[in-house]
This record gives sequence, C-alpha cells and structure tokens, in this order.
Amino acid sequence: METIDGRASTALLTDQYELTMLAAALADGSAHRRCTFEVFARRLPNGRRYGVVAGTGRMLEALTRFRFGPAELEVAARFLDDRTLEWLRAYRFGGDIDGYAEGDLYFPNSPVLSVRGSFAECVILETLILSVYNHDCAIASAAARMVSAAAGRRMIEMGSRRTHELAAPASSRAAYLAGFDATSNLEAVRRYGIPGAGTSAHAFTLLHSGSDGAHEAEAFRSQVRALGVGTTLLVDTFDIAQGVATAIEVAGPELGGVRIDSGDLGVLAGQVREQLDSLGATRTRIVVSGDLDEYAIAALRAEPVDVYGVGTSLVVGSGAPTAGMVYKLVEVDGVPVAKRSSHKESRGGTKGAIRLARASGTIVEEVVFPAGSAPATGEFTARELHVPLVRGGELTPDQPSLAESRDLVARGLVSLPWEGLKLSAGEPAVPTTFAAE
Amino acid sequence: METIDGRASTALLTDQYELTMLAAALADGSAHRRCTFEVFARRLPNGRRYGVVAGTGRMLEALTRFRFGPAELEVAARFLDDRTLEWLRAYRFGGDIDGYAEGDLYFPNSPVLSVRGSFAECVILETLILSVYNHDCAIASAAARMVSAAAGRRMIEMGSRRTHELAAPASSRAAYLAGFDATSNLEAVRRYGIPGAGTSAHAFTLLHSGSDGAHEAEAFRSQVRALGVGTTLLVDTFDIAQGVATAIEVAGPELGGVRIDSGDLGVLAGQVREQLDSLGATRTRIVVSGDLDEYAIAALRAEPVDVYGVGTSLVVGSGAPTAGMVYKLVEVDGVPVAKRSSHKESRGGTKGAIRLARASGTIVEEVVFPAGSAPATGEFTARELHVPLVRGGELTPDQPSLAESRDLVARGLVSLPWEGLKLSAGEPAVPTTFAAE
Repeated sequence: METIDGRASTALLTDQYELTMLAAALADGSAHRRCTFEVFARRLPNGRRYGVVAGTGRMLEALTRFRFGPAELEVAARFLDDRTLEWLRAYRFGGDIDGYAEGDLYFPNSPVLSVRGSFAECVILETLILSVYNHDCAIASAAARMVSAAAGRRMIEMGSRRTHELAAPASSRAAYLAGFDATSNLEAVRRYGIPGAGTSAHAFTLLHSGSDGAHEAEAFRSQVRALGVGTTLLVDTFDIAQGVATAIEVAGPELGGVRIDSGDLGVLAGQVREQLDSLGATRTRIVVSGDLDEYAIAALRAEPVDVYGVGTSLVVGSGAPTAGMVYKLVEVDGVPVAKRSSHKESRGGTKGAIRLARASGTIVEEVVFPAGSAPATGEFTARELHVPLVRGGELTPDQPSLAESRDLVARGLVSLPWEGLKLSAGEPAVPTTFAAE
Repeated sequence: METIDGRASTALLTDQYELTMLAAALADGSAHRRCTFEVFARRLPNGRRYGVVAGTGRMLEALTRFRFGPAELEVAARFLDDRTLEWLRAYRFGGDIDGYAEGDLYFPNSPVLSVRGSFAECVILETLILSVYNHDCAIASAAARMVSAAAGRRMIEMGSRRTHELAAPASSRAAYLAGFDATSNLEAVRRYGIPGAGTSAHAFTLLHSGSDGAHEAEAFRSQVRALGVGTTLLVDTFDIAQGVATAIEVAGPELGGVRIDSGDLGVLAGQVREQLDSLGATRTRIVVSGDLDEYAIAALRAEPVDVYGVGTSLVVGSGAPTAGMVYKLVEVDGVPVAKRSSHKESRGGTKGAIRLARASGTIVEEVVFPAGSAPATGEFTARELHVPLVRGGELTPDQPSLAESRDLVARGLVSLPWEGLKLSAGEPAVPTTFAAE
C-alpha cells in the first residue's frame, strides 16, 4: 500500500464504479460541474429514537490520505484510460465539507454532511466516507443507549474479539465518544488516548491447575502479586461463592473488584455484594460481563453492579451494525436534483439544518432548509447544526478533540425529551421537517 | 504503528488483559507451562445449518506481524513491568497451530483451531485470532447461503460502504471464498486478486441534468462511450420502462446489462426482460440490487435475473455479524482443563476431529475426539479435519491459495445432506459428537 507521510493510502477503499463514473464524466466534460453530495440516513434502525454522529475525525484523517500513488494507480490502470489515471495521480480534494459536529445527535434526513466541489473530486469519496460513517455512527448510536441505561455506572468496552481486528479500535473510539469510560483495546489506547482497562480470563485461573485439579487461590495470589490489590479477580471459573471467599482470603478486604461473567447476573450481583460486605470488602467493586446489551444493562439497574463490561452487542451495534447512511448527489451547477423512482425519493438541493429547543434546553424539532434560507424559529432557540469541516480541501482549524466530542454527546442526550431516552422501539425523539424556501 | 517488513504490527490489536495475565504468569513461572488453546463456536447463529471457516489466511499473515517494536512497547510500558516488556520485545510465536482448512465447513463445537505452545506465547494471540475468525467466518457463512440461494447465477459483492473501511476488503475476500464471483472493492482486487466489478450510480445520471431537467440519454451515451457497449446501465433513476427504452436506443441491442436497484425486483425483472427481448436485446443481462439477502435472492429464483449485487446483508453477516468463536484453554501440561460455572461448560483436552460421509459423499456426522485417539468409523469414510498450519512458529509450506479454499467451500456445500441447504432456521446439518478415549 502506498504511504502518505508514512501512513497507508486510503484511495482504494473505494468501489470500482466511482472511478468508472469519473472516467466517463472526465470524457464528456461533466466531471467539472459544481456539485453537492449529502450524507444522511432515511430512517433510524429498529425504532431507535436518535442517532449519534461519529466518525468525523476518522473520516477527515482518512481524507488526507486519499491519494493515488504508484500502487493505487497500478490497480486503476487495469480498467481506466490514461486521462483518468493522470487526473487521479494529481488528485487532492479541493472542495468544502460542512457537517454536523462529531458527537451531535442526528435524526432521519438530517443532512449530516454536505460535500461540495466538482463532481469528480466529490464522487470518488463516496465509499470511504460512507464506510467510516456507517460503521462509527452505528456503534456510537448503540453505545449511547447503553450509557443511558447504565445511569452513570462505569462502562468498559471489551468487544474487540467480536469484530474485525481493525474495526475494533474504531468501535472503541465510538464507544468512548458515546460515554463509555474505558476500553480493553490497546490500539485504541495508543491511537486515541482512551483509558485502557482489563481484568483477567478464565484461562488464567485454569492455567493454575495440576493433576490434582484447579488451584484458584494460586491464580488469584499470582494476579494480586503482579497487578496489585486494586486488580479485579474473575470469580466464576468454578463456584462463585467459593471464588469470592477465596478472592478476599487472598487479597484482603481492599481488593479492587470481582468480575462475574456468567449466570443470572442480577441474582449473583446481590449475593456477591452481601458476601463481600460480610467479609468486610465493602468497597470491592462488582464488575459484570457476558452478553450485556442495553436491555440487560437496564435490567440490572436495581442491582449492586459497579461496572459493566460490554462486548459483542456493542461492536455489532446491538442489532443495527450499519447506520444506513447514503451519499446522494443533491445539486448540480446550482440546480437541485433528485431521483424519482419508487420508494427511495430524495430531496434535492444543498441544505442547512437547525435544531429548535425550549428555553429549558429540551429539543422539539429538527428543521432542514435550503442552504442560506434558515426559517424563523418562533418561540424556540435555534442552533445551527452545520460546522465547517473542510475549506478548499484543507481541514478547518480548531477541530474538536475526542473529549470535546464526547461532551457534545452527553449534552445531546440531556437535551432529548424524556421519550427520547426510552429503550423501546418508537418514533424519532423529535420530528425532522423541511422548510421550503 | 511499528512496521514489519514495511507492514504494520498487529501486536496492539489485543485486549489489555492478555498482557497483564502474561505479566502475572511470567512472575509466578506458570507462563512456560505447555498449553493448548482451542477455537470453536458453541453454537451456530440464528438456526443456521453450517458455518464456513474463513480468515485462516488472513490470521496467519497477521501472525507474522505480531511483534512488539518501540511504538507497541511504549504503550505496554504504561502498565507492565520490565521483565514482561523484555519478554514482549523478543516475542515470536514459536508453537504449533493445527486447524480446519480455510473454506471447510464447521459445526457447533468443531475444534476449528488448536493453538499449542507455552501459555505466554499462546494467550496473547487470543484477541487477534478471534477478531479475524469471528469476522470472516460470519461473512463467509452468510455468503455461502446467498450463493446457494442464487443457484449458479452471478454474484457481485458490493457492501463496502456499509461496513468499516478496512473490514470491507476482508468481507470481499470472505464472500469470494464462499462463491461470490466479483467485488466492487478495489483494495480487495489489489490485495487478494478478486475480480473487480461495477456498474454506475444514480448520481451519474443526475449529473447529466440541466435547468430543463434530466438528460438520461446523455448520461447513458457518455457511459457507453467511455466504458464500451458491454457496460451495465442503471435504468431506475426515473421511469424504468423509459430507462430501458433509452438504454437500448443509445447502446443498441448489444448492451451488456441493465441494473434495477429499487422497486419490486421480481415483477420488474420480468417486465424488463420482456421489454429487452422485444427490443432485440436478448443477451442484455439483468442485474438486480437493493437490500438483497439470501431470502430475497431465493425468492427471485423463478425470475429472469442474471446477476445479483449484494451489499448490506453480506457485510453484516445477514443477521449474524459475528461468529461466536471463543478461544479456550483446554489443556495444561498434558492435563485437560475446563471451567465449570453455569451455562458455558467447555470440554477440556487437545482434540482432533473427523467428518464421516456416506459413499455418496454426503456427510453424516462430525466426530471430535481426544487428540491421537480417532475412533473407528464403521461403514463411513472419514476425513481428518485438522491440517498443520504452523510448526515451530513457521507457517507450513503449501498454504492453499484463495482459489483452492474457494473450491473447498463449493465441495463442502455439495457434501451437505439436503436439509443442510435449507434457508430456514433449524438444527445443524450434521450432529457433532464427542468420542471419549
């Protein structure tokens, strides 16, 4: 793979037809028409009430690596003419991108991104932009529901083994953005500065076995010796009550935590809390894991759980592993365009969007309008949702940090009307309306 | 990221606890015990009848890049002691791996991989191995059902935009392995030599619009001029019947194909076929796309569809985006080990597996047994399922090509009893039994 400043090119993370359309458009001259492409979701998956915009930072970074070097051009040369290859060789995106800030909420038809420039320079970004947004928005949107359900308890993302090895750090990032506290994934720790976390696996306990059977105490003693008394011991390899007793015997009542990874977590959490308290380990935390999703997390709200470890359901978007974002041409040389065939109507034209809120901060409506024609907002306060992300091909200064985007998610969740935080399937938390010019 | 021969290190695609367990095991001396870890799925997702082993080639390649250079050690040094860091600096996997050949079928409890070596050298591979297998097996298993449903018609994978940008080429590879014919993803074309394919998007037709509206004929003419009459024109941007008429008017009856991406594909395929035939375009192929999964593909079996383009449902594993593979310690210093806590019992010991078949080739049973103790097979022919993948840390010679693995999938599907190819939910196609020593 070609490298850009030592990093891999992203140019081939692209569908072939983007480049054949480019070739045809260069040949007939239409490639240079000024276009707007819009990224939006026609609907939220599975009766969700809101979505969380995620991936913006990753997409912008990938955009700076979208370059055709010799290795990329070698592949393109198999099906493209010389004119197109020359154009790709010199390619740098030189247009503008506006979009919802990373971490903002979105709803059906929210114009999450507006990509403007020549047809040629915009069309070839479609696959990469959608891949990043469809993945990251799906994970962050599921993660935010889990964070809501956890009601302030600590959340550790530990789903790396359940998803593609390079999707894993992106999932960790999206989860952290949505309010998770830490990740098990070391590449996410390095790349994004997310706090790392981890406990121990059953294998470690089983390793401490002999021909006479298992020595759980030996495993616990080893872990405490190596990692300190603040560590979390996994107590469910054999019998949980015995595991808890052994853990406190070995580590003393200052033990950091115990993890339960199987069984009826609600019942077990209560029993283990009682047992820990009776042993004087009143500050030892209870970590639960094992097929937790937002519903299971919510169901444990009344139980003495201190930390949730979430794996599979997080990285598969809890039933919605892709966000359904599309990248549609909406304007050509100042004229709105839209397809008209059945079931997939789109609204043409470059758009802006505002979100209306009561004085309390609770949002009531998303209004999408032809760019430059923001409607009157009546009694409500209005927030412009588009921020400039790219100007003339350059990232705008003052891109938010991941921590700032994380704060934006938290503020967004607080702004939802109360139905918006319901886990059950239903309508979007606020309607999206179109204001004609 | 550290690079190995110019390629990125995979060492941090790992959960933190693998390395803290390593530290504790190095400190107490248990790190050097001889262990077997086994990769298997406790069950197939969603009532599936079989799974397809995929990712072996990718995993083995990633294994050769599992090295801790300065960048990886810098992260590890934040929570590990010097002894562990020194050990990681020198790390090379030096053990053995046996496994089902890539492209073979698997069933619940099939010992898909058997990883043997010291605890230390094996445990830290868990996350990476599972990430690759859980992703690739999920995609290939879904793809094989789609290929069965298509009953020999051409299949193009075009789901890149619906999944993480770097999961996309791995999805293309898994789909091709399972019998898809081509991919839209250019990185998969480059990296794995999969045939590329593509048509055109609605944006290209809409680009050819003026203030007087759309000029579909102009778009079609441009595409045919640039890409030849063998191209596939997208005819559903406006009115499909008009689109087909315009397509043949512009391209003539030798047009390669038309694509329909919306509407009732079954009805439309019939109408379009009639229209094409009446225009003399009897060899123009009909390509359908738009939210196709194995059920929709099967439902179109009676219709004159020539090519299926499959996106979303493929890359999300058609409802099962992760394969549920686990990596379990099953033997320590020659003694079988297993956890005993509720609901997740494992069977200890290093294992082998054979698959029994009738003389006709139809398989009847998968038999798992303690390694070295293959049972008698009675009237059936038996095939050993484990092949050596790694010996003393080195990949075995004669690793199969992707084409060879693809052939193995095709042969596997033919070997299933007829119920095994049913799309409906049910039991695994053959039972997995354990033969005790």
